[in-house]
Amino acid sequence: MLVVAGPASPALGRRVAELLEADLASVEWKLFPDGESYIRLPRDLKGERVVIVQSTPPPQDKRLMELFFLVDLVKDLGASEVIAVVPYLAYMRQDKRFMSGEAVSIKVVAKLLESVGVDAVVLVDSHSKIVCEHFNVDVIEVSAMPLIGEYFAEMKLPNPFVLAPDAKAFSMIKVVAEKLGAPCDYLKKVRDRVTGEVKTFFKEVDVEGREVIIVDDIISTGGTIANAARIALDLGASCVYASCTHALLVGGALDKLRKAGVSEVVGTDTIESDFSKVSVAPTIVQALKRNL
Amino acid sequence: MLVVAGPASPALGRRVAELLEADLASVEWKLFPDGESYIRLPRDLKGERVVIVQSTPPPQDKRLMELFFLVDLVKDLGASEVIAVVPYLAYMRQDKRFMSGEAVSIKVVAKLLESVGVDAVVLVDSHSKIVCEHFNVDVIEVSAMPLIGEYFAEMKLPNPFVLAPDAKAFSMIKVVAEKLGAPCDYLKKVRDRVTGEVKTFFKEVDVEGREVIIVDDIISTGGTIANAARIALDLGASCVYASCTHALLVGGALDKLRKAGVSEVVGTDTIESDFSKVSVAPTIVQALKRNL
Repeated sequence: MLVVAGPASPALGRRVAELLEADLASVEWKLFPDGESYIRLPRDLKGERVVIVQSTPPPQDKRLMELFFLVDLVKDLGASEVIAVVPYLAYMRQDKRFMSGEAVSIKVVAKLLESVGVDAVVLVDSHSKIVCEHFNVDVIEVSAMPLIGEYFAEMKLPNPFVLAPDAKAFSMIKVVAEKLGAPCDYLKKVRDRVTGEVKTFFKEVDVEGREVIIVDDIISTGGTIANAARIALDLGASCVYASCTHALLVGGALDKLRKAGVSEVVGTDTIESDFSKVSVAPTIVQALKRNL
Repeated sequence: MLVVAGPASPALGRRVAELLEADLASVEWKLFPDGESYIRLPRDLKGERVVIVQSTPPPQDKRLMELFFLVDLVKDLGASEVIAVVPYLAYMRQDKRFMSGEAVSIKVVAKLLESVGVDAVVLVDSHSKIVCEHFNVDVIEVSAMPLIGEYFAEMKLPNPFVLAPDAKAFSMIKVVAEKLGAPCDYLKKVRDRVTGEVKTFFKEVDVEGREVIIVDDIISTGGTIANAARIALDLGASCVYASCTHALLVGGALDKLRKAGVSEVVGTDTIESDFSKVSVAPTIVQALKRNL
């Protein structure tokens, strides 16, 4: 068993290799002056089972192409099996045709990955069940939520409260609350019958004096979370944390979150940055061991 | 017959449709805040033969993904046949393994294009014969060189001279000289036996008082062409033009060329920019008509 860390996941790749007690192959990579990616793996892989760890956050198209190059190369160098760990999977939110004539981008990404010879895929909090259905190869899905729960449990907050920004995220984040032994709820959106305005408010629970931890799968532009933070603080929360598996944080998200009163942003290493405070390596390795 | 112009080739796509006397389908496309591409083609394509025109200059990985999304979508919407015109093909210079363990990137690009269902590919000056060999579907290759020759012929320069920056480009650029009725030559590289230094110089011909047109397939960082321009001017050329099929012009190339004394840069619309002064539409349409 050999682990190959792609350009987007050097730290997570290393952690996965350590926990798997497997060799880590170093990939030579660079950009040509025009921006083309160069990938080299000077090693014989004959008969090897190889785990490639490569996330695909922005610049997502470059990260995807690097992943395709890597999978093809590893097969070309003789690997008997290639498992692609794609911690953050680009285009996963384009998982169906919302309007006629739309590209179902994630379907294409799955097809491309399969065409270069991937044998199985490991995904972390991949947004919807539909995503997995677009793959014909085995998909192993894991969640970062238990680890996020443990991260906050270690903070020993006196009165934590876990909040989902919407109903969809609620089932996913319950496990965070369980790890903390804390109550949880989600924000409800209601349209005013007279004005047509959409209002977001707490369904029922009282957060006064509590540390509110808002949890979602992805924080992209941060608008939803900033709004939820403002509501929580208005209702008397003592402080607000924002947490997610995939901290994309694009379009001035961080500024937006800070202005809304968020005191800390906690993401994972599905996207490696200053905010990847939780490593998903243990849950990935558990899943790999179960499936190998 | 329907022409679909991708995000990278709106002008060339329109020109191809006009010359083919075919309908041009408009593609809706945008970027999400995180940079993901959105593609929509709200149109029934049942039984249609579709020509997609999408070039892949930098940001090449995004352009490639858009192309994959488009080909897959057009097939999905019922097209009976998809011909992908990829005027500038990214990664074509990585066409073989120069060192052990290197990704042969263009092989992967070909494989990915085929996996989404492309039936044939049209390429323009695709750098090497090896590129075509990586495709299993039909490859129709055309050259922009006759059109570049015609562009300069119309300038009616009194004493033109056509120069290839190296021996490899020489056979390609002869047709430019023919169109102009001008002499041509290439720069030769020789290593000094004592110092080991590589020197570039004219093989034989006299350029004194002549308008020198340096022609290559790609101008990337412009280093090679700037060097050739300096040599030509040192040898008494009255002025120097730089021309190519694919004017990538990255890494301050334009500045380099201007400082070296180049008075005009002439590229084609394989890469749409201020320098696409020659349209490759006529040669693409000729090739399509021959092969349909």
